[in-house]
Amino acid sequence: MTAPERSEPEAVVDLAGLLAYAELTAFDRMVDDARMAPSLEDRAALAGMAVAEFAHFRRLHEHLERELGVDAESAMTPFVAVLDAFHEQTAPSDWLEGLVKAYVGDGFAVDFYREIAERIDEPTRSLVLDTLADTGHAAFAVDKVRAAIDAEPAIAGRLALWARRLMGEALTQAHRVAVERQSLARLISGSGVDSAGDLAALGKMFARITEAHSVRMATLGLKA
Amino acid sequence: MTAPERSEPEAVVDLAGLLAYAELTAFDRMVDDARMAPSLEDRAALAGMAVAEFAHFRRLHEHLERELGVDAESAMTPFVAVLDAFHEQTAPSDWLEGLVKAYVGDGFAVDFYREIAERIDEPTRSLVLDTLADTGHAAFAVDKVRAAIDAEPAIAGRLALWARRLMGEALTQAHRVAVERQSLARLISGSGVDSAGDLAALGKMFARITEAHSVRMATLGLKA
Repeated sequence: MTAPERSEPEAVVDLAGLLAYAELTAFDRMVDDARMAPSLEDRAALAGMAVAEFAHFRRLHEHLERELGVDAESAMTPFVAVLDAFHEQTAPSDWLEGLVKAYVGDGFAVDFYREIAERIDEPTRSLVLDTLADTGHAAFAVDKVRAAIDAEPAIAGRLALWARRLMGEALTQAHRVAVERQSLARLISGSGVDSAGDLAALGKMFARITEAHSVRMATLGLKA
Repeated sequence: MTAPERSEPEAVVDLAGLLAYAELTAFDRMVDDARMAPSLEDRAALAGMAVAEFAHFRRLHEHLERELGVDAESAMTPFVAVLDAFHEQTAPSDWLEGLVKAYVGDGFAVDFYREIAERIDEPTRSLVLDTLADTGHAAFAVDKVRAAIDAEPAIAGRLALWARRLMGEALTQAHRVAVERQSLARLISGSGVDSAGDLAALGKMFARITEAHSVRMATLGLKA
């Protein structure tokens, strides 16, 4: 790909702030979900992955304050409501729903943030891409969910519905962020979201993310 | 102090298992409590300390499996009920109660585990003592609680009562562990808890811990 034009500082801070709070809250929720684990080993495994998310949060926090020279709390604050809303709407009711959420939610997040990161400058860009590196929980979730479906095929329908709900909620909130934060909207579309062409750019991005989601559903053994 | 007699392997596994689950559950609860923080910075700070507890859990888990050659889950299981009961009885209702709990609970735990660790062999002994190293949250909690009391002296009474309740609950559960697990009881008393002399050894240990608690209360600016 060709090098992007120089991204505006506001968009860079927004992306780092959004991702920092996303990591903090993902950490938090995964620790909660870990409590539903069928064994202490599984609980410790999921908690360990949550801790990896926290390490990502720390790096982004440091980056915001030291490299970008902004107050990390102020950079995260605009995104608290939207991320909290996502998690409130998608509290898993059992261990398997928690794993599906970790896998689907994480996959969605990786795709979404990568799309944006590719449009911003270094060094934030590399840090964001680095932060999106898999902490090992995709494989863990896939193994556990597939094994559970093998043992009891009847649960596949419920989990597929759950995954669809997660995806719908993630799209709703991601759209909200993309449209409400003008700096991010400009970044994604190349200019803004006031014209039909700009909205089309946004639409295309979400179409790519939705397609990747279908592939992940098949990996889990679920219908998209 | 003189070197202890060779401790029985069962007691060593019990201590490591107990402490491992204590760290896992402390991690968990501190992440919960962090959510009541008045700012994202405070939330991140407490979550960071929780993550340090998780690192301790990991080291103990590894020690159980690799050095002691036992299944970590089996070693922790006997202590799940007692530690969960402690946390259920002492769920903080706000940020300051959470900080007081982190400080008082942690101080209690350090004293209790150190008393036992001094009676067991290396290398578990060093690992346990190491694991008890302060993760920085004592100073954090003291600062925040003292500042809150300075700003609003009327809350001191409520927090002092809360601390007393925490201490009572911790003593209850620690007693339960010390008496129910014969291996630990023998370690503490030198033989068992069937005779009056053995119960006295247990009593003395808890008296020392209670005294240390009073010092901590004064540090917080609270009446013991």
